[in-house]
Amino acid sequence: MTDSKTQADLGRQLMSRLDEAAEHSLPGPGVTRLFCSDEHRHVLELIAGWMREAGLTPELDASGNLVGRSARAKAGEMTLILGSHQDTVVEGGKYDGMLGVALPLQALQALKESSIELPYGVEVVAFGDEEGTRFQSTLIGSRALAGTFDPSSLEARDADDVSLGDALKDFGGDPEAIPQLARNPESVIGFVEVHIEQGPVLEQRDQAVGVVTALTGIERHRLTVTGKAGHAGTTPMEGRRDALVGAAEMVVEIDRLLNATQDFVGVVGKLEVRPNAVNVIPAEVTFTLELRSPHAKVRETGSRSILEACQRLARARGLDLTAEPTYQAEAVACAEWLIEALEDACQACHESAERMFSGAGHDGLAMNDLTDIGMLFVRCQDGLSHHPDEAITAEDADRAIRVLMRFLTDLPLSTQPRNTH
Amino acid sequence: MTDSKTQADLGRQLMSRLDEAAEHSLPGPGVTRLFCSDEHRHVLELIAGWMREAGLTPELDASGNLVGRSARAKAGEMTLILGSHQDTVVEGGKYDGMLGVALPLQALQALKESSIELPYGVEVVAFGDEEGTRFQSTLIGSRALAGTFDPSSLEARDADDVSLGDALKDFGGDPEAIPQLARNPESVIGFVEVHIEQGPVLEQRDQAVGVVTALTGIERHRLTVTGKAGHAGTTPMEGRRDALVGAAEMVVEIDRLLNATQDFVGVVGKLEVRPNAVNVIPAEVTFTLELRSPHAKVRETGSRSILEACQRLARARGLDLTAEPTYQAEAVACAEWLIEALEDACQACHESAERMFSGAGHDGLAMNDLTDIGMLFVRCQDGLSHHPDEAITAEDADRAIRVLMRFLTDLPLSTQPRNTH
Repeated sequence: MTDSKTQADLGRQLMSRLDEAAEHSLPGPGVTRLFCSDEHRHVLELIAGWMREAGLTPELDASGNLVGRSARAKAGEMTLILGSHQDTVVEGGKYDGMLGVALPLQALQALKESSIELPYGVEVVAFGDEEGTRFQSTLIGSRALAGTFDPSSLEARDADDVSLGDALKDFGGDPEAIPQLARNPESVIGFVEVHIEQGPVLEQRDQAVGVVTALTGIERHRLTVTGKAGHAGTTPMEGRRDALVGAAEMVVEIDRLLNATQDFVGVVGKLEVRPNAVNVIPAEVTFTLELRSPHAKVRETGSRSILEACQRLARARGLDLTAEPTYQAEAVACAEWLIEALEDACQACHESAERMFSGAGHDGLAMNDLTDIGMLFVRCQDGLSHHPDEAITAEDADRAIRVLMRFLTDLPLSTQPRNTH
Repeated sequence: MTDSKTQADLGRQLMSRLDEAAEHSLPGPGVTRLFCSDEHRHVLELIAGWMREAGLTPELDASGNLVGRSARAKAGEMTLILGSHQDTVVEGGKYDGMLGVALPLQALQALKESSIELPYGVEVVAFGDEEGTRFQSTLIGSRALAGTFDPSSLEARDADDVSLGDALKDFGGDPEAIPQLARNPESVIGFVEVHIEQGPVLEQRDQAVGVVTALTGIERHRLTVTGKAGHAGTTPMEGRRDALVGAAEMVVEIDRLLNATQDFVGVVGKLEVRPNAVNVIPAEVTFTLELRSPHAKVRETGSRSILEACQRLARARGLDLTAEPTYQAEAVACAEWLIEALEDACQACHESAERMFSGAGHDGLAMNDLTDIGMLFVRCQDGLSHHPDEAITAEDADRAIRVLMRFLTDLPLSTQPRNTH
């Protein structure tokens, strides 16, 4: 009874810390906290306090990350890095990012208060910027640690024409010192991030937590269907080259192919019609196609099938189709030994936690260049994220803290093969 | 040989008159000639000259029409009204409207020069406004003659906030006298309009002219498909309520049903997606549906089938669908006796001229309230209209003049049943 009461208290304390962090926001619905803003500065003061309570020493690094180190980490021992990002989208929620900062600190504090000392170093990082809301340039902080920081991103400018470099200097960072933040892979055990799922899978499975196997690869294309405009009243149906009818067939077929393929998701999210008039046959339709899969092969094969099907549909209607790739990011796999360690921790806590993949990108995309990565997902209400109504329950927070504590105490340090980085 | 040379000359003269009329345009590509503009005033001076050469007396009426009357018409004898509109869309062509003014005048002039006197009165009208480009209010001139003029249209304002009433007064019209323009149906034989087809049917049939059976009825709807937004990476395909996929199925099915139905055309011309972002599942799609048929029953039955099919498709995907009617205009049939008289004239001129319907609206929509209407279509290049590249050939102009001359000389005056108006 004492134990479960303590844990319920941990969940409630975590929720109240997340509520407090959410107060550091621009005015408006939900939470808007941008990189190198006053809200960023103030929330780091709050987090620094949590770090101290967890037995870590907080320090702002040159790239705007707040890093809390345990004594063993500071002494240069092998170190596990935990953490997530402090920034949000415009009018985002309380949990995306901040949960992955506050939850590990809550778990470490509970271990400390139980006088359990971990036999390895620990760092918890509140990365400055993952969403890229202010500068459209993302993963600055995790790339700095991974040694893949691109100095040209300092030139990125916000809506007020302030450069990222200048904003960082004003914030107390040091753009020129960022390259020295790169960690030595030899001293890092791995990177583990706790994050809300941002999707409905855990809710559908009735599970509080899930173990992530991979962060999906993404590709995006812009497709343009060209037909022929005409007076919609005087042009017979037969022989029309209606770009919208052709594009509509493609949208339906894309959805069918995606549904027919395992581990493959995608969307036509944006579509525009020209001339877009009530009585004119559409001459041109442009739409975006986004495809994601944790398996490169699935994405590549699926993408090829989809683009070929669109070409077939275009030809059948005498339409022209051009498809232009606009973005691509490869999938990143979580390390099998970290997946298993997280699964073991779930099992020990009687949490059924099936494997799943992450459809969204995270700091792990960058950290994977440095070290093995693992992710624990926490169920969120209605799969909603990037929205003021983003929500998790105190009970799920509790269960996730318990799993992470178990993971930390049981972490196998020397028996597991490491991925090569 | 003399005869055919004369006719070729008529076609060339008509083309050169249409070129001259096209010079009365705002600067820019194509022809832009608005109601009650300086260009309108100047083109009427030109047309007045043509009228005099055709033996008609020109007069500007209170509603901005230029009306040319033969002696018999002025004497109150039974009168056939011919004509079309002088105004254009922005950056329109030389033929839409103006052909129906210039061609009858050319035919009447040729008859006069051959000393052929018609046994009935003739009026040729250059209606001031049919396109409604300047005031968004259309058919002012034809409604004035039909006695269906709505005084509230005088309040319509152009982009410079000038009211139609004021513009008309400045132009030399007399808003208050418009109701007195209403013709006595007893003294009117019918109204016949020559117009470019504005579609590709005659070109496909390899015919210079076509006889119109009806002006289609039109209905328009705004459909809104509502689904559920979601992160396109983290929401599994299964269970999505993607409004765009649902709308795309509707667009495809609408096109299929239209193609499967005789004398039924339509289009989804305008479509908008919300939130319209590359990585967000579309939450809402709004699109317009326009349907046209010369037969009210075809349009009504077809419209019902289409809206029911859309509702079925929405239900199958768990989407909400609302459909709101935004516009409706009933079909107007041409008088059978005028259709037959035009067909007889075509046959006499060795023109194969199948019946066809007009998918666009014309002054006949208003004139039908006064008298029987008939329309002769002239082939236009690529079915193009409302465009600077709008074109007809001098040869087709020639052939159409010949048909109209024959129609005028052979017009059966007393043996035909009249429609009731």
